[in-house]
Amino acid sequence: MAEFMPATLLSVATDEAAGETRYHQLADQMAEAIRRGTLLPGSRLPSVRRCSQMHQVSINTVVAAYRRLEDRGLIEARPQSGFYVSSALPVLESRIEEHSPAAEPADEVLALIDKVFAAQTNPEYTNISLACPQTSDFYPGGKLGRIMSSLLRRQPKIISQYALPPGSLHLRQQVARRAMALGMILEPNDITLTHGCMEALQLALRVTTQPGDSVGLETPTYFFLLPLLASLGLKAVEIPTDPQDGLSLDALELMLSEKRLNAVIAMPTAQNPMGFTMPLAAKKRLARLMNDYQVPLIEDGLYAEIQFGATLSPAVKSFDKNGWVLFCTSFTKTLAPDFRIGWIAGGRFGEKLRQLKAVSSMSESVLLSETLAVFLESGGFDHHLRSLRRRYAAQIDEAKSLIMRYFPQGTRATQPKGGFVFWVDLPPAVDTVKLFDLLLMEKICLTPGTLYSPSGRYRNALRLSCCYPFDARYTDALARVGRRACEISGLPPGIVTQAAE
Amino acid sequence: MAEFMPATLLSVATDEAAGETRYHQLADQMAEAIRRGTLLPGSRLPSVRRCSQMHQVSINTVVAAYRRLEDRGLIEARPQSGFYVSSALPVLESRIEEHSPAAEPADEVLALIDKVFAAQTNPEYTNISLACPQTSDFYPGGKLGRIMSSLLRRQPKIISQYALPPGSLHLRQQVARRAMALGMILEPNDITLTHGCMEALQLALRVTTQPGDSVGLETPTYFFLLPLLASLGLKAVEIPTDPQDGLSLDALELMLSEKRLNAVIAMPTAQNPMGFTMPLAAKKRLARLMNDYQVPLIEDGLYAEIQFGATLSPAVKSFDKNGWVLFCTSFTKTLAPDFRIGWIAGGRFGEKLRQLKAVSSMSESVLLSETLAVFLESGGFDHHLRSLRRRYAAQIDEAKSLIMRYFPQGTRATQPKGGFVFWVDLPPAVDTVKLFDLLLMEKICLTPGTLYSPSGRYRNALRLSCCYPFDARYTDALARVGRRACEISGLPPGIVTQAAE
Repeated sequence: MAEFMPATLLSVATDEAAGETRYHQLADQMAEAIRRGTLLPGSRLPSVRRCSQMHQVSINTVVAAYRRLEDRGLIEARPQSGFYVSSALPVLESRIEEHSPAAEPADEVLALIDKVFAAQTNPEYTNISLACPQTSDFYPGGKLGRIMSSLLRRQPKIISQYALPPGSLHLRQQVARRAMALGMILEPNDITLTHGCMEALQLALRVTTQPGDSVGLETPTYFFLLPLLASLGLKAVEIPTDPQDGLSLDALELMLSEKRLNAVIAMPTAQNPMGFTMPLAAKKRLARLMNDYQVPLIEDGLYAEIQFGATLSPAVKSFDKNGWVLFCTSFTKTLAPDFRIGWIAGGRFGEKLRQLKAVSSMSESVLLSETLAVFLESGGFDHHLRSLRRRYAAQIDEAKSLIMRYFPQGTRATQPKGGFVFWVDLPPAVDTVKLFDLLLMEKICLTPGTLYSPSGRYRNALRLSCCYPFDARYTDALARVGRRACEISGLPPGIVTQAAE
Repeated sequence: MAEFMPATLLSVATDEAAGETRYHQLADQMAEAIRRGTLLPGSRLPSVRRCSQMHQVSINTVVAAYRRLEDRGLIEARPQSGFYVSSALPVLESRIEEHSPAAEPADEVLALIDKVFAAQTNPEYTNISLACPQTSDFYPGGKLGRIMSSLLRRQPKIISQYALPPGSLHLRQQVARRAMALGMILEPNDITLTHGCMEALQLALRVTTQPGDSVGLETPTYFFLLPLLASLGLKAVEIPTDPQDGLSLDALELMLSEKRLNAVIAMPTAQNPMGFTMPLAAKKRLARLMNDYQVPLIEDGLYAEIQFGATLSPAVKSFDKNGWVLFCTSFTKTLAPDFRIGWIAGGRFGEKLRQLKAVSSMSESVLLSETLAVFLESGGFDHHLRSLRRRYAAQIDEAKSLIMRYFPQGTRATQPKGGFVFWVDLPPAVDTVKLFDLLLMEKICLTPGTLYSPSGRYRNALRLSCCYPFDARYTDALARVGRRACEISGLPPGIVTQAAE
């Protein structure tokens, strides 16, 4: 490949901030074709010259695009032969889970969550699976800092005045404007600012349930929901969930009709930990079901703006007729991880939510809120999001190519539609709780699958997160995890193309 | 008085930021003598010349001190005669309250709190009683802003990195250092940062109680505790409380011995709404009782650093033997109202508290935390606190002198030992809920006494707050409240010196 790569190209190809350049577009189109199976693993790509004629772009553009796809592990160069689509990590397909009764999350699971999270927050450990953005050059911290410094100069009193609920009108106006991109028509007064999405979810649960109530969850689900439910005396019910399409709505409807659920909490878009987005028709049916049965749906939309597709799949909230959907999200993953400013549109619970926020933690900082509002107003957010989506999609591809190289045969993974996490299913012989303990001695942290189920399922799965810098430390840690998993299972590394089990 | 006031003095006398100048000290000494009754209402002060000889200070210093006392309403000039100690607002003394059974806060009280708080947050209304600092030149916003801008320049990545619990070590170190001034020996790991004191109290209640439990409260108490208790399914028990000495420990001990309390929440220093500080011996006994009966005490120390006395009364937590005291506070009233950074030292509940904070709202902003830590480290905090205490003490005196002038005869008030709120007891004929409704039509907001009791006591009381700028708008509002109260009660305004009822 080196012969096609003049020195002048290198700077263009490595300038991640250049935005919507032609080679980016070409690479994205081809990556999408590979993901959809239009280009099959093992098939040969057109030559650089042929590709440049087909797409009416320069040779240099094709070279840069191919190089990018190679970096992401999607294609590989074979000497004297050309470029080939890499083998793909087998996709995790549907499965039917046996039912677990409504119960408080198991003590072993809660204890494991405490243990894993305590290790995760130790800065000496290499983290490969916590969903806490640390790749700081993916976020416009410099621009936000300049906006903040300018606010401090122009309004020095801002720090010295008490922030009252429901929080900055300016930010709520901008939030309402942006919510339209996800199909939601909101007024600033429908929105309450919260201390990140975590507080939004906490308040949403407190406002819709009573201790002893049963809450339906996706399985696997966001693991911090489990200690949260336990702290509120709530029972968890795992609703069968397809790794590609999300909640089984037939199962959900059965449970609703039998009045077994007092609320449902779900992430219909770019789900954590699997990355799926529910199909549009399913989102519509979900909204209809919740309104028909008059049971609140707490929609966690934390990654809804980091979708990889060309158009954004709308929020379930956008199909909400009578206010039974509470939409929760935050700027923590999309714009300013340190600020912890989130928001909630509480539908018919909006007024009670506002009151509960005030007596739970009062309000959010006006300084931080105004900083976000000015950024959102200035129009740079869409550009930033396009770049963020591309970067996280590329890091996920790269992580998958490492898994293919180092993890034991039989490993499968989900295909995220957004966000920066995905779910890895290892061969049954690999107990990921043991794997966690083993790796901890090497100061590497991962999150075993068991964390993500109130009844302790998924002993051979784990979640990976791609929000860390893809440096030698990260890739080495991932390789070590793979090698340990091979040792435990006695299976060789590498992918054997096979039908999913 | 004008003849003693050369033009050059004016700038000194009005320079609030000048700090510990001699005339400030002299005025403070005399104010204290007036408060203690060493100088009785109506008595004549020494002449300016005599006073200057007595205290070995210049004539100008005495003039500035007298002028300051006059501004605060503590003394008055009588033409051709000299300066006299003003009449004092009668002090609210002990009373015995009948007992109320443990019960969820009354619905009427909760509805009234919602209604009053909604009005309070309307910026069009003149607020005279919410405890939300708005006098921005009392706080070092400029200095904090410069620290923050400097952090942003030196560490531009700070905004783009996820903040993990338990929060900035740097700030927790500074908090531990400063806590020694209140007698507490803490390690940084004993401290969890929270989203203001409100979240600290919320987490403390959630970690120490179960729904259905009974929580002992001072009466009157901080009104937002009532909807907070209701939201957690907790019952409130009013413990008899002396307006000058705080909780009746005999009554508390009886309740503890009868196992009627699962937790107690109290503000032993500069209490909101009454302003009392429990005597030292009572604080020690309180700590001993809670440890002996093994019932958690949630100590709200929000105003503990804004004490008016020369030395700080220590926290009850400083006498805590076995970790049954949870100390909650915040920098919201002392340093940076907008930041909403608070902290909790959870004693034996510390580990569970850390976990609960993480699943409730994760963490606090590192940018805001580091800004506070740098300020605290730089050593300007003590100077700032001295100035803040003096300013709030002066505003309380000034508000009281307005009450003496405009409120109906028979009005009494508490003598705050710190903070910026106090409690006003009007004649029985004045229903302050009606007064609230009347004044709302004039766009003036006050907080009726009924808000401060879960069983709806104190129909003829209200809390006043002195954290607002003492401009014409505030003083006019206070005068109007007094006039309306006179109309309702049919009593004339002004103080008749009398024994408290």
